[in-house]
Amino acid sequence: MNNFRVAFVQCKPTFGATDANLEKGLALAATVDAHLVVLPELWSTGYVFSSHAEVAQLAEDPSTGATAAALRYAAKREKRFYIAGFAEASRGRYYNSAMLVGPKGIVSVYRKLHLFEREQEWFRPGDRDLSVHKVGPARIGMIICYDWRFPETARVLALKGADVIAHPSNLVFANAQQAMLTRSIENRVYTITANRTGTEKRPGGTVPFTGRSQIVDAHGIPMARASKTAEIAMAADLDLDIARDKSLTKRTHLFRPRQPKFYRDLVR
Amino acid sequence: MNNFRVAFVQCKPTFGATDANLEKGLALAATVDAHLVVLPELWSTGYVFSSHAEVAQLAEDPSTGATAAALRYAAKREKRFYIAGFAEASRGRYYNSAMLVGPKGIVSVYRKLHLFEREQEWFRPGDRDLSVHKVGPARIGMIICYDWRFPETARVLALKGADVIAHPSNLVFANAQQAMLTRSIENRVYTITANRTGTEKRPGGTVPFTGRSQIVDAHGIPMARASKTAEIAMAADLDLDIARDKSLTKRTHLFRPRQPKFYRDLVR
Repeated sequence: MNNFRVAFVQCKPTFGATDANLEKGLALAATVDAHLVVLPELWSTGYVFSSHAEVAQLAEDPSTGATAAALRYAAKREKRFYIAGFAEASRGRYYNSAMLVGPKGIVSVYRKLHLFEREQEWFRPGDRDLSVHKVGPARIGMIICYDWRFPETARVLALKGADVIAHPSNLVFANAQQAMLTRSIENRVYTITANRTGTEKRPGGTVPFTGRSQIVDAHGIPMARASKTAEIAMAADLDLDIARDKSLTKRTHLFRPRQPKFYRDLVR
Repeated sequence: MNNFRVAFVQCKPTFGATDANLEKGLALAATVDAHLVVLPELWSTGYVFSSHAEVAQLAEDPSTGATAAALRYAAKREKRFYIAGFAEASRGRYYNSAMLVGPKGIVSVYRKLHLFEREQEWFRPGDRDLSVHKVGPARIGMIICYDWRFPETARVLALKGADVIAHPSNLVFANAQQAMLTRSIENRVYTITANRTGTEKRPGGTVPFTGRSQIVDAHGIPMARASKTAEIAMAADLDLDIARDKSLTKRTHLFRPRQPKFYRDLVR
């Protein structure tokens, strides 16, 4: 037993209300005991941007922004880690990103590799490697929302040694949560989907979100799952040893039979 | 509408009874009208080998073997295509293979890339590319049973243009059928899992199989699904245009946002 306790926060950010979103999300986070808390995609800004001016106004440089400041403060005070989605500004470029923050500050920023719908107007696709980070005893990777549909993302993280994949989301299709069970099964990793709820109705469009945030065990069984609409935090205890033992049986391994020379089309 | 009708046969081969297995499988196939019929893994021999001598005795060279002969005859008479699992002998080497056979004879043999449990004692891992074949208006790829757990297999076939992935199986874990829905969703392809039923009790072990063969549409919805135990053939009409249109929406494509330079770990 190699215990690691994780949680998600499922909430309903209000577009543009950064301070209120931070406050409400962290208040929900404070209701659960966990080593790592995962918050939704674009948690602090909301999702439906309407103009480049809005992006420029709301996106943050993680070294100076309000989201990073709030998370650094909470992580230090609570002696734990957070992963949360935010709109990233970096030298005049914008990304749909997630930050991993611990008691000592920002550990890493992941930039969403696969953009969905109008995100392609507002953000650049990610330009950094999928990477795995030590969080206490755990090895954590990040993907964001629509990345789920690309099996390459979770696979790369698992091959790099991730025990847990955090998945901040603003999901709109109902089949994503089910597909995440397969990501856990095929990679023998825990997955945490922190989705948002509610509908954003803005000049840029009306987008309803699917809730049903979940923590899935390394065999693909949901350990915790929220309803479609609740604003709630839920936690579960993970046994990291289960994710690290890639033996399906005594004789059959999950990764060793891989035959990379026949996968070359994946990188063309 | 670009119509293509496919079927699976779910049956219960008796170990070593090649002639009876061929006869029963083809009799079930004859109950359905389809352009392509998919039969289970190791359909003609049964699954639980006990010795290398048994493998040597039962495996077939596809150019001379009884399975190929029976399928060639059926395909020619019925003017349609078959995919079926068989134990392949090739120059003193043995493979867990599937053959695609049409009215003009054998089109292709796929050798299972990822072997499961004692298969590793009896067979060599596949040594040929995953490949896509024209079958009438359709483009067909093959994977076999445990290959399902490796998302690389279906992904490579989809990137090579497969509309339909045929999946002859002898499945023993209950989560495979569900995961195949994800293979359809992530790749926008039809999948046909032809699984076997029954339990094989032999000196080499006792193995219960899970049935529940299925045809899944390109959005991940089951179109036809057998029970755990029925010996049955089922068919469904596929619209190939749906699998060929990889637009999730007007703005979002399933494949174009892929970022292969960040997937390099998959081929290491």
